[in-house]
Amino acid sequence: MAELFIGIDVGATNVKIGCFDGELKLISKKSITTDAEMGPDIVVGNITEAVKMLVTESGLSIDDVCAVGLGTPGPAKYSEGIILSSTNMPKFKNVPIRRMLSEKLGKPVVFDNDANVACWGEFVAGAGKEVNDMVFFTLGTGIGGAIVNHGELLTGCGDNATELGHIIIYPDGRRCNCGQRGCVEAYASASWTAARATEAVEAGAESSLKKVLDTKGEITCKDVYEHLARGDQLAKKITDETAKALAVLCINVLHTTEPERIVFAGGMIAAGDVLLDRIRHYFNEHIWILKKETVEICFATLGEDAGIIGAAALAKHAKEQDRLN
Amino acid sequence: MAELFIGIDVGATNVKIGCFDGELKLISKKSITTDAEMGPDIVVGNITEAVKMLVTESGLSIDDVCAVGLGTPGPAKYSEGIILSSTNMPKFKNVPIRRMLSEKLGKPVVFDNDANVACWGEFVAGAGKEVNDMVFFTLGTGIGGAIVNHGELLTGCGDNATELGHIIIYPDGRRCNCGQRGCVEAYASASWTAARATEAVEAGAESSLKKVLDTKGEITCKDVYEHLARGDQLAKKITDETAKALAVLCINVLHTTEPERIVFAGGMIAAGDVLLDRIRHYFNEHIWILKKETVEICFATLGEDAGIIGAAALAKHAKEQDRLN
Repeated sequence: MAELFIGIDVGATNVKIGCFDGELKLISKKSITTDAEMGPDIVVGNITEAVKMLVTESGLSIDDVCAVGLGTPGPAKYSEGIILSSTNMPKFKNVPIRRMLSEKLGKPVVFDNDANVACWGEFVAGAGKEVNDMVFFTLGTGIGGAIVNHGELLTGCGDNATELGHIIIYPDGRRCNCGQRGCVEAYASASWTAARATEAVEAGAESSLKKVLDTKGEITCKDVYEHLARGDQLAKKITDETAKALAVLCINVLHTTEPERIVFAGGMIAAGDVLLDRIRHYFNEHIWILKKETVEICFATLGEDAGIIGAAALAKHAKEQDRLN
Repeated sequence: MAELFIGIDVGATNVKIGCFDGELKLISKKSITTDAEMGPDIVVGNITEAVKMLVTESGLSIDDVCAVGLGTPGPAKYSEGIILSSTNMPKFKNVPIRRMLSEKLGKPVVFDNDANVACWGEFVAGAGKEVNDMVFFTLGTGIGGAIVNHGELLTGCGDNATELGHIIIYPDGRRCNCGQRGCVEAYASASWTAARATEAVEAGAESSLKKVLDTKGEITCKDVYEHLARGDQLAKKITDETAKALAVLCINVLHTTEPERIVFAGGMIAAGDVLLDRIRHYFNEHIWILKKETVEICFATLGEDAGIIGAAALAKHAKEQDRLN
C-alpha cells in the first residue's frame, strides 16, 4: 500500500494541491480557482473534489492518503483550526476549516498559516534543507515570516508569533497598514517599494520611471527592478533602501533566534542577485564587530511549490510525531 | 537523604552561591569576592571551597548535592562549557570552566549565560512563574536578554541567541559598543540613559542635573530618576526616550516569539512605576491595531537572588530531563 500525503495551499485566487508519496516526492499537482465568494461550504467542497480527482487521476486510491496539510492566510486560530477572517475572502469568518475539510475527506488535517507552510517546505526540501535553524521571509504585498528553531516551527503563546514584517525599524516612520509606524513591511515589501518609487517620482525626482507612471498610471516593484537594470539612479536608491531595511531585519532576527540561514521568498526575489547582493552588503555594513557572523542569507529555491510541499511535509511530520487526530 | 541543588552566579566582582532543596527552596546562601585577577584555577578553587563550606555550614553533606548550576557573563561557548573571554575578567580566555568546576566538586555542572540563568530564575520562581512563554531583559550597563518559549530557554544554532540589547531600532543611530549603530542598548541601558542626560546638559539643556554634573563630574541613571521625581523636565525627556526605546523592543519581540509576559530586571528597575508606566504607555501607543495584545509587561520580583535560583533550577531541570553528564 502506498503512503500518500496531500498538501493544500489556499490563496485568495487559487488553491494549489499536491499529492506526495511517503518520501515527499511530488506525484501530481493541480490548481483550482478559490471562488472564495461562493462561501466556505462550496470552497471546501471544491477542494475535497479536487483532492479526490488528483489522487484517482494518478492511479492511486484515497484510502492510501495518510494525512492532509493545509495552509491559508491569517488571521486564524490555527491551533483550533479556525479561520477568523480574511481580507481577500470576506465570507470566511470564524470558519472551522480544519474540521470541515477533515470530515469531508475522512482524513486528519494539519493546519497552519501560509508563511509557516512555505517555510517548512523550504526547510525540508529547499533552501534550508541542510540546516536546523532558519528564518524565512516572504516578500510580497506584505512581508510574512516564519522561524524554524532546532528543527521545529517556532510558535508563541497564541497563534501570532513570527509576524516578522511588523518588526519596527524606524519608530515614528511610515504608517503601516497594521497601524504601527516604521514596520519593515512599510519600507521593504513589494508594494511599499513601488509606493516609495511612486512618491519620489511624484515629488519630482528625475527617473526613467516617470514615463511608466505617466503611461500606466502606476509603478510596480517589477518596474523598479527593470529600470534599475537599465541604470536608473532613482531605482537604485529605492532598491538600496529596501535592501537596507531587509538587512536590519536580518540582524534583528539573528540577535533573537540565531538562525544558521535566512531565506527570502516571494514574488520580489525575482529581482535576483541585484537585490540579494545589496541585502548582504548592508548586512555586512551594519552587523556588529563583536564576533564574525556566519549566517547565510539566500533566496528560496522551491518557487510556487513551497506551499504544497510544506503542507504535505507538515502532515507527514505530525504523523511521525504521533500528533494526527 | 536530602536532594540538594547548588546555584552559582559569577559576576566580575562577586560570586553568589545558593544551596537549595529539591523543591528549590533556599536553604542558605553566601557571596565571595570573585578575585578574577588571580586567574581561573584559583577562582574555581575558591568557588569549590565556598560551595563545600556553604553545604556543611547548613548541616548538610556534599554527597547530597545532585547537581550544580553555573551562570557567567559571555561571550562563552556554553554548550561546550568554555568561557571564551571576558571584558571584566581578562585572565579568563578559553577557560573550560564547566569541566574544571565539575572535577573539583565531583558533581555534574550545568552552564549558561547570566541573562539566561536570571531569566530562568524569574520563570520558575518569580515574575514569570504562571506563564509558559516569556521574554526577559536585564537593564544595566548593557541590555541582556533571554527568551523562554514553551517552557524552555530559547537557544539558536550557536551560543549567541537572544542578544536582545543589540536589536537595531534606529538604523544609523548612536554607535553601540558592539560596533552596530542604533542598538536599543545604545539608548535605553542605564549607562546610555546617563550618557544621553550628560550630553544634553553639556549641550546646554536647562536642568537641575547640571549641578550634579558640575559637582560630581558625572550623571548616573539613578540621578536621572531622582531628578525626574523632583519634576525636572530634561530628566522626563530622557526617561521618555528610554521608555519608548524599550517599548519598541517589546513590540519587536512580541512579533517574533509572542510571549505571554515581558519581564524587565536589572539595576534600572529601581526607578519603579515611573519607568514601567512609561514603557506601557509607549507600548500601547506604538502597537498595531490588527488585534488587541494581551501581553503583560512587568518588573522582575526576585532581585539579586534570580541568578542563584535560576542556576539551581537549571540544574534541577537538566536532572529531570536526564541531561546531566
